[in-house]
Amino acid sequence: MIDPKLNSLLQRFEQQDVRALARLITLVENRAAEVSTVMEHVYSKTGHAYTIGITGAPGAGKSTLVNQLIGKYRAQDKLVAVLAIDPSSPFSGGAVLGDRIRMTDHYRDTGVYIRSLSTRGHHGGLSRAAREIVKLLDAFGYDIIVIETVGVGQTELSVMDLANTTVVVTVPEGGDSVQVMKAGLNEIADLFVVNKADRDGADRIKAELELSVHLRPTEGWRPPVLLTQAAAGVGIDAVVAAITRHADYLREHRDPVGEGERRVHEFAEVLAAEMEERTARALKDGAVSVEAIMKEVRQGVLNPYTAARRTIEDRTSVAELLGQTKAARTVE
Amino acid sequence: MIDPKLNSLLQRFEQQDVRALARLITLVENRAAEVSTVMEHVYSKTGHAYTIGITGAPGAGKSTLVNQLIGKYRAQDKLVAVLAIDPSSPFSGGAVLGDRIRMTDHYRDTGVYIRSLSTRGHHGGLSRAAREIVKLLDAFGYDIIVIETVGVGQTELSVMDLANTTVVVTVPEGGDSVQVMKAGLNEIADLFVVNKADRDGADRIKAELELSVHLRPTEGWRPPVLLTQAAAGVGIDAVVAAITRHADYLREHRDPVGEGERRVHEFAEVLAAEMEERTARALKDGAVSVEAIMKEVRQGVLNPYTAARRTIEDRTSVAELLGQTKAARTVE
Repeated sequence: MIDPKLNSLLQRFEQQDVRALARLITLVENRAAEVSTVMEHVYSKTGHAYTIGITGAPGAGKSTLVNQLIGKYRAQDKLVAVLAIDPSSPFSGGAVLGDRIRMTDHYRDTGVYIRSLSTRGHHGGLSRAAREIVKLLDAFGYDIIVIETVGVGQTELSVMDLANTTVVVTVPEGGDSVQVMKAGLNEIADLFVVNKADRDGADRIKAELELSVHLRPTEGWRPPVLLTQAAAGVGIDAVVAAITRHADYLREHRDPVGEGERRVHEFAEVLAAEMEERTARALKDGAVSVEAIMKEVRQGVLNPYTAARRTIEDRTSVAELLGQTKAARTVE
Repeated sequence: MIDPKLNSLLQRFEQQDVRALARLITLVENRAAEVSTVMEHVYSKTGHAYTIGITGAPGAGKSTLVNQLIGKYRAQDKLVAVLAIDPSSPFSGGAVLGDRIRMTDHYRDTGVYIRSLSTRGHHGGLSRAAREIVKLLDAFGYDIIVIETVGVGQTELSVMDLANTTVVVTVPEGGDSVQVMKAGLNEIADLFVVNKADRDGADRIKAELELSVHLRPTEGWRPPVLLTQAAAGVGIDAVVAAITRHADYLREHRDPVGEGERRVHEFAEVLAAEMEERTARALKDGAVSVEAIMKEVRQGVLNPYTAARRTIEDRTSVAELLGQTKAARTVE
């Protein structure tokens, strides 16, 4: 039933072939038709990895911190994957506009897998792709998955929903823009890191963040505020310890009802995404049943909203767009 | 066929009642079930407004520039609407963390409508909501629609697709973060404004931007780079003139084929969005035909991808999720 090439790719994935992993990630990134088959196959192997989100403004030293964290987790013999969704990250090969690409210490370590995900051209699909790549990395066997995003923007923040622990990195001189970002970042932080803490104002920003934490209306986990100098390796052990404490907290406060709701929510998202992608592919391939309506839309004589309503109300069109025809034929 | 309350709202909208406009925008923002009916009704009245996107880092002076542009267009007797999608914008009533809200000069002018759109909780639906609000403002009769977004982040950049002319605002001291952002902003800019041009480095950044423009591989429109001091009103006339030149350029280079493609693309987007939102509402309202599958998902015995595929392949489920049953009943 599955395409033999895809099948062999999935087999190689199960045999821990990193090139197969890379190929599957590329399929996800390109929103290939095979994605949902791939996810159906790997899903049962997920649920083992711990996911750490690292976010903050460009220049806060996120990548340096990630680099240090990799070292700490590798020293514990954990397999580590990094997903960089930050165009300015050196992990992305990023370093735009001619900056020198700073190689990290871990490129030659086979226990570390680093992958970047472009933020361009996804138009809403970025968090979906990120979620699926995290599932692939989890199923492949990585113990720790670090997701690095630049901490501004709606999409970038929503990616942090994937993290078990979200670390928000700031710097003393962040000033106005830090103020602005705190508005969104405050709510998602499980842990604050004030990096470059040797600079002026580190204690002030630490106090400010601690105050904002104490103003939170919620009971439960209170995000600690830690000082680091990531470039010099100072304060990293405390970050790792805080992440472990948060993981313990999550485990102790596991909520089976919430877990069920999270699953239902994921189902709703996957269902909507699958409908959208099947529809987009069918339209691109020239779905016959919507040709007449598309023509009117193209000429501007039918507005897109009326066209969409008519298409959805027409069972033949929906069956073609969602690929139900084929499924029905197989059954009959 | 239309709900009488909605009908009266649409009538008041046609009679230029600003409160009706505000109510309809709120429906769009809340993704109410009525949105597609509203859009079907107002769509034929759109196509008149000119849309200007203003984007750039926090602190670049975007809102001050917008304020000045409002004054210039009002002096031409044009009706102006502003849609602020920038949490740091004073137009958003934003000014987070206790900053004083700086009132603009135009709040009491009935020829100016200012509305903010929260970036929170939209999860992918932000650009859809923004597109529909722009249509509403257009249909209502505004001549100029200004969209202000903070110039970082995937979603925020995609909102700029709605603009006829995109103005990217930078400042001399932007430094590193400007470097980073230029990567994304360069491609979408129709016009660069270096604001706070009395500060050191304005000429250098102007030269840099002009160089980057000349390095563009594309033929056609070359984005000009203008110096302003928005707070003092310096350079604003040149910005207005450049926007007019770009509008003229777009009109002269109008491409009917591209126009048709744009319409088809919009149809595809609306269709996918409509499927997604109908599905989400049906799931929330407890669609009977997917109850059994949802139960298995909730218990974790069925993975979301297999559940989604089975749901899509089941015609009864799809008919209920997309509300086809009701439509069919009306017809029969």
